[in-house]
Amino acid sequence: MKAKVYVNLKSGVLDPQGKAIQHSVELLGFSGISDVRQGKYFEISLDGSMDNQRALESVEKMAREVLSNPIIEDYRVEIET
Amino acid sequence: MKAKVYVNLKSGVLDPQGKAIQHSVELLGFSGISDVRQGKYFEISLDGSMDNQRALESVEKMAREVLSNPIIEDYRVEIET
Repeated sequence: MKAKVYVNLKSGVLDPQGKAIQHSVELLGFSGISDVRQGKYFEISLDGSMDNQRALESVEKMAREVLSNPIIEDYRVEIET
Repeated sequence: MKAKVYVNLKSGVLDPQGKAIQHSVELLGFSGISDVRQGKYFEISLDGSMDNQRALESVEKMAREVLSNPIIEDYRVEIET
């Protein structure tokens, strides 16, 4: 079983890294881009010791408490069986 | 229109950052985790000047040439209208 956690900055929070990427890709000739925001992505492999529901709860807790900063970041969890 | 780009290390490539995260979450009491791998996630907002097909091509090119290192990383592109 695999869990995927996506962490990105909340919409009101400034993202200088994203702005730098946007500036770079524009310099490199890519056009039509109005915004770039960078986030993080975690792939967590779980051994089969938990059922789907418990795995989701455990990974949600991990995303909230360890992988993201809930003051400035949102997270999303997906479980793949 | 929004594009999402997910970049992660290829499966054979060592991921010390992921290993460090795995070790930390285990110390914090989370169990049942067999592997953690960290990747990157980009949200790219596009102005409406391109149709879906052109947007996908442009973002695929960007992912391949700028946002990922194709020697050690894989990428995945999603377009949301």
